[in-house]
Amino acid sequence: MVITKEQVLQALSHVEEPDLKKDLVTLNMIQDIHIDGNRLSFSVILTTPACPLKGLIENACRNAIGHFISKDIEVSVNMTSRVTTQKNTGVPGVKNIIAVASGKGGVGKSTVAANLALGLAKAGASVGLIDADIYGPSVPIMFGLEGERPKATQENGKTRIEPIEKYGIKLLSIGFFTDPNQPVPWRGPMVSTAVKQLFNDADWGELDYLVVDLPPGTGDVHITVTQTFPVTGAVIVTTPQNVALADAKKGIGMFMMNAINVPILGVVENMAYFTPAELPGNKYHIFGRDGGKKLAEQLDVPFLGEIPLVASISESGDAGMPVVLQENNAMTTAFMDMARLVAQQVSIYNARGVTDKNVVNN
Amino acid sequence: MVITKEQVLQALSHVEEPDLKKDLVTLNMIQDIHIDGNRLSFSVILTTPACPLKGLIENACRNAIGHFISKDIEVSVNMTSRVTTQKNTGVPGVKNIIAVASGKGGVGKSTVAANLALGLAKAGASVGLIDADIYGPSVPIMFGLEGERPKATQENGKTRIEPIEKYGIKLLSIGFFTDPNQPVPWRGPMVSTAVKQLFNDADWGELDYLVVDLPPGTGDVHITVTQTFPVTGAVIVTTPQNVALADAKKGIGMFMMNAINVPILGVVENMAYFTPAELPGNKYHIFGRDGGKKLAEQLDVPFLGEIPLVASISESGDAGMPVVLQENNAMTTAFMDMARLVAQQVSIYNARGVTDKNVVNN
Ligand SMILES: Nc1ncnc2c1ncn2[C@@H]1O[C@H](COP(=O)(O)OP(=O)(O)OP(=O)(O)O)[C@@H](O)[C@H]1O
Ligand SMILES: Nc1ncnc2c1ncn2[C@@H]1O[C@H](COP(=O)(O)OP(=O)(O)OP(=O)(O)O)[C@@H](O)[C@H]1O
Ligand SMILES: [Mg+2]
Ligand SMILES: [Mg+2]
Repeated sequence: MVITKEQVLQALSHVEEPDLKKDLVTLNMIQDIHIDGNRLSFSVILTTPACPLKGLIENACRNAIGHFISKDIEVSVNMTSRVTTQKNTGVPGVKNIIAVASGKGGVGKSTVAANLALGLAKAGASVGLIDADIYGPSVPIMFGLEGERPKATQENGKTRIEPIEKYGIKLLSIGFFTDPNQPVPWRGPMVSTAVKQLFNDADWGELDYLVVDLPPGTGDVHITVTQTFPVTGAVIVTTPQNVALADAKKGIGMFMMNAINVPILGVVENMAYFTPAELPGNKYHIFGRDGGKKLAEQLDVPFLGEIPLVASISESGDAGMPVVLQENNAMTTAFMDMARLVAQQVSIYNARGVTDKNVVNN
Repeated sequence: MVITKEQVLQALSHVEEPDLKKDLVTLNMIQDIHIDGNRLSFSVILTTPACPLKGLIENACRNAIGHFISKDIEVSVNMTSRVTTQKNTGVPGVKNIIAVASGKGGVGKSTVAANLALGLAKAGASVGLIDADIYGPSVPIMFGLEGERPKATQENGKTRIEPIEKYGIKLLSIGFFTDPNQPVPWRGPMVSTAVKQLFNDADWGELDYLVVDLPPGTGDVHITVTQTFPVTGAVIVTTPQNVALADAKKGIGMFMMNAINVPILGVVENMAYFTPAELPGNKYHIFGRDGGKKLAEQLDVPFLGEIPLVASISESGDAGMPVVLQENNAMTTAFMDMARLVAQQVSIYNARGVTDKNVVNN
């Protein structure tokens, strides 16, 4: 039996990318077709290595070849990815900027940002993380980097900062430049300048995702970041209480304002409930129930999952090794699922604003 | 037996105020001495109605009369108070400004501020509460005052704002002036102006304590409040984790800076542990153990107690009636104890900087 490239493309044009609502061929996602007798191999270029539909799409491809060409073909599918981008992020080499925000303090923004960045990296993406919380930077402690100072070099009279690499991602925190024992009683304009430098003066290299951990509120840092850099989307973290939801709504409202206009990638409900080891069947909703899920429904944005109150999350943050790095931990699964959902939303937003050609090479 | 005023004063001059380290007579705390045969009555003017040593001092007075004059005297002691002040707070009629702060977000500043204000009022003080968190005001929800708008009148071309009264205290929140569904994307200078108005343009009347709920961080609001108004002291709230302690240290560092110089009244450890109803003997230290206590020791400031993680605290905040208002709740006791310790510290600081004459009349 002789099969042709055209037949393969024809068959695969019946496979729809469920999120992007177009077929794989139209989306330019099929490449490297090799035919050798009845052996066929090709690559599927997903829009993110963290694609939650990877297995589904691979199966659909195999089925399409079997159904439209022949069941006797030995198919080898190479699932790979090339992260999409939509607009110039303003930071050279950076494809997508993901802001993690909440309005409310202490709901777990930094925890989500760190585990999201590491989760995306674990899935195979190249990732950076900016800790833009001037007054309460968390990255130095959460990554065991207290006292570290990034290298800074002069290049044509301009300062270049080298992000610190840890656990496979690139990091910068305002905390690397300030004395951890000293307060930073800065007014807004100084804060804005410092935050811009983290983006502009650093050698980020090529990044699929640059995750930004924002401080609580909707103040100077938020305005500066969203107005200076085209943020791809925002992940909103909330805990289930009314007081937190009220602030989360305001945070979302800020991103939706005309002057800012940053898509909401979804809502994460953190500290959803506590389960004591001795009572594995019990869920104690200390901070209320389903607040984040309801908020997501109400505002018609994706719900990115719930994370329970677990001592290991707090401990691992304090110990300098975020929980998603652990193997065989239920929290690792929860954060990996969340990371995949976020990457999926980024791909969907990128696809809305782009034609096939905008799929950028790595 | 005939006793004289002089004998009574002589006897009571042996009673030391344990905090202020001087005797009651020198401190001008004994007044209204009435002698009628062997019946003696007098008033002890404490420095705060929330004095945790009230019972102790009353006993010491009775013992002194018995010991130095006669056991046969029928003594009636009227324990009352006149809250002290030290410096002009910059807000007419307000004796003491107590800032509640943390550095870190979401550790329970607003919860502590609300329950502290109500606890002081429950003890008999006249109290005001300013919610200075522009981006995430909590007072409207915590006091069931969403949608309320304080009355504003014009007086000689100046705007006068009338604080809202609820549960016996006077309240103002920036949240009363903004749309709860809209974000407040204000930069620092606007925020500073708005906060100053809450102090200056409001009719606070006579207040023993004006509690200020500060936003997280050490930013514009903190600088404005501490530099514009002579804050009596700061209560630092923290949870037990390292990331929270690091920020709490910075918060404390800010108050201790020369340019700011606000005394630290003490540290409250919030969300210290969780105890499920089914396992009343178990304490789950979800966020770590004793962090706040250790911080207080390390920085040599008073430890104001630990508050466990309890659903009723979160629920009562969401329901518009802070938990200290409930009777027969273990959390009521915890917050009342905390309020007494705070009032005690204020009295101690006031006594250090003042002579007896500075005891101001109500
Ligand atoms: N699901 C969880 N279970 C247990 N602890 C958690 C959980 N999520 C976050 N924490 C802990 O709660 C604290 C607050 O979380 P985090 O610092 O991530 O919040 P944040 O929103 O970034 O706070 P801030 O507003 O101060 O920036 C941290 O000590 C963190 O380790
Ligand atoms: N001890 C506790 N047990 C249970 N819930 C608590 C406790 N303390 C605070 N909470 C709840 O946790 C949430 C955060 O508390 P709160 O709003 O007082 O913190 P905050 O430090 O003022 O936050 P922000 O930094 O956003 O101003 C609230 O929903 C509150 O009701
Ligand atoms: Mg944070
Ligand atoms: Mg608050």
